[in-house]
Amino acid sequence: MALVVQKYGGTSVGSIERIKNVARRVVETKNRGNQVVVVLSAMSGETDRLIALANEINSEHSRREHDVLVASGEQVSISLMAMAVESLGEKAISFLGSQVSIKTDNDHSRARIKAIDSRRIMEALASGFIVVVAGFQGVDDEGNITTLGRGGSDTSAVAVAAALQADVCEIYTDVDGVYTTDPNICNKARKLDKISYDEMLELSSLGAKVLQNRSVEFAQKYGIPIHVRSSFSDLEGTIVCKEDDNMEKAVVSGVAYNKNEAKVTIRGIPDHPGIAASIFSSIADEGIVVDMIIQNTSAEGLTDLTFTVPKLDYEHALSSLKRINDEIGAREINGDRDIAKVSIVGIGMRTHANVAGRMFAALSRENINIMMISTSEIKVSCVIAEKYTELAVRVLHQEFELAKETTDESKEV
Amino acid sequence: MALVVQKYGGTSVGSIERIKNVARRVVETKNRGNQVVVVLSAMSGETDRLIALANEINSEHSRREHDVLVASGEQVSISLMAMAVESLGEKAISFLGSQVSIKTDNDHSRARIKAIDSRRIMEALASGFIVVVAGFQGVDDEGNITTLGRGGSDTSAVAVAAALQADVCEIYTDVDGVYTTDPNICNKARKLDKISYDEMLELSSLGAKVLQNRSVEFAQKYGIPIHVRSSFSDLEGTIVCKEDDNMEKAVVSGVAYNKNEAKVTIRGIPDHPGIAASIFSSIADEGIVVDMIIQNTSAEGLTDLTFTVPKLDYEHALSSLKRINDEIGAREINGDRDIAKVSIVGIGMRTHANVAGRMFAALSRENINIMMISTSEIKVSCVIAEKYTELAVRVLHQEFELAKETTDESKEV
Repeated sequence: MALVVQKYGGTSVGSIERIKNVARRVVETKNRGNQVVVVLSAMSGETDRLIALANEINSEHSRREHDVLVASGEQVSISLMAMAVESLGEKAISFLGSQVSIKTDNDHSRARIKAIDSRRIMEALASGFIVVVAGFQGVDDEGNITTLGRGGSDTSAVAVAAALQADVCEIYTDVDGVYTTDPNICNKARKLDKISYDEMLELSSLGAKVLQNRSVEFAQKYGIPIHVRSSFSDLEGTIVCKEDDNMEKAVVSGVAYNKNEAKVTIRGIPDHPGIAASIFSSIADEGIVVDMIIQNTSAEGLTDLTFTVPKLDYEHALSSLKRINDEIGAREINGDRDIAKVSIVGIGMRTHANVAGRMFAALSRENINIMMISTSEIKVSCVIAEKYTELAVRVLHQEFELAKETTDESKEV
Repeated sequence: MALVVQKYGGTSVGSIERIKNVARRVVETKNRGNQVVVVLSAMSGETDRLIALANEINSEHSRREHDVLVASGEQVSISLMAMAVESLGEKAISFLGSQVSIKTDNDHSRARIKAIDSRRIMEALASGFIVVVAGFQGVDDEGNITTLGRGGSDTSAVAVAAALQADVCEIYTDVDGVYTTDPNICNKARKLDKISYDEMLELSSLGAKVLQNRSVEFAQKYGIPIHVRSSFSDLEGTIVCKEDDNMEKAVVSGVAYNKNEAKVTIRGIPDHPGIAASIFSSIADEGIVVDMIIQNTSAEGLTDLTFTVPKLDYEHALSSLKRINDEIGAREINGDRDIAKVSIVGIGMRTHANVAGRMFAALSRENINIMMISTSEIKVSCVIAEKYTELAVRVLHQEFELAKETTDESKEV
């Protein structure tokens, strides 16, 4: 008998009919001899509806009350799900974040889970109940309701799975797994059977929207395998787990891209200590998050600085830099909105040389100019002109032979 | 500085605009130097919407999950109210039933309040917050969410007021107080300045829909004055409080009526022990609540029994009696749907003789036949033909001079 945690997102519980479908799937899982804990988001659209009400009343409302308000969304979905399970003849019980002590810090609307008390869930499972837990929400030490921020239900599910020492945490979503790249722009994209936590973290950070990053960190920390799969089919999805010998042996596991950044360039900055610090602290003070940063030192005691910011913050970043340019004394501040970041990710890079070189060569064969480069142990990212994004993804997908299966397992079949 | 508990029903918080209006009233109350605790129902229509969803999924859903579902309604209204108060520049904090330990028994959907922990509310008040508490909901000893049943927010408000030893519990509603009778059928109806708990309890039981009965019992037990008033005006309403020397000296304080009952008559029952018990236990087994009961013993060892049941259960009651008539052996079972109960209520009856006689005489002058009579220490009820209801109410209102103010206070003016 396995203990399975299943998480369903807002779309999967977005209507009465869909709630009933999920209930059938949950009951089937139990009937196959498993103990089942279900973690749910609010019905799709509900959180937006509530936030619209709040903004109509007070657009500057406190984050504490915001959390009380939006947490009502999962309260509705979990009770309806428990009722749907009951209608199929199984016992079900719903729990709010506060009822199973999903303890978080008190950073409202983006709280982080600190601990979960597994006792009540374990008791209910032992009594034969299907347990339905509200995702996305928790409670601080004072008993105030907190929420984890958008996508937080993934993290709730993994945290519950970790607390219960579950065998697997299944994340049901509207795609059927993790792909080598976005199937919408590369028809050779292939669903991965397995991927390591580290690779998944890089892919998520780089633009793949399958899992909330924090949920993968949690799973890695507690060694819980995540099974990403579709709520609309019975196909096996992708297992996110510890790197092991059965893992695909490819040098590169996936190609990611991100069109949501813009590039800012400051040329001719007097090259003396403290300048970079004052630039980036002024950007940070505006609440703008900087991603890649590249600095070139020029010969004449001047330096050039290029970095990327979210496209939405581009104008804001430019104007605040121009405002402080008296202090910086740069010759020129400009930028480019029409860029994209393409990245290759793979734990194989650790043991294979010149992966970056192969990437640059492949892009160059298509005359795609590389504007910025950033690397980590298991990824290489290049900033290119946005118009080449799809071409670059397809070229890299082919260069690293991602359409081909390379697991030991698949070879044996 | 007084501590004021204000309760607003679903209609008073039924829209964004109305929530803002209530917030203004609450802030004004604070600005007059009071500490304010607000107890809210769900926005009108919300509870019905949620119950409709539940019934669509599983019309036989468990009462535990029902309570989880509907309790989300107040969670929305209290957080929106706190935000509305914040927008007026005051500090506000919302609390769910579970957060201030509104402890109830575990009889889901009709739970009874056992205790309230006043600590968190008192702390918040001391820190200058306006406190917004979810009505209608509580939590059992296991931490399960419970609800008090329709109208339960009145009881929540009084219970909170009792726990805080508040100076007054103001119940805001869509009428501006308690009237001597229904102004819709008697244009002489007069708003009462004060009424005793006992009279209010009788009036509520007899058909006046101003306050939930249990809330009045609670107020009486803990000696909390209730001020019933309109959320749409600033007029003083009616104070429900302990009987005292300042109370109106009228023999009768109000006339109530109820058209929602029907009369069942069983004639020619063999008059031996156990017959009545078997009749009423069979009625009770069908979930039918009996109100008035009258038994006449006839000369021939036979007896007649007449009682009233809710109109909705009338057919049901008749058919189940006919089913068990083999056992009862009655000559005839029939009834009458077209009846009404009119009642006079007043603590003055305790000290005045022949109040009932004056009532019967007044009805008789209008040729209104009395079918059944029931009395208590402070009320007399008569069942009459439904068509005479309005006439009877007006006649009794006049007979007992209810249009005239009779308080000592008013005499002094």
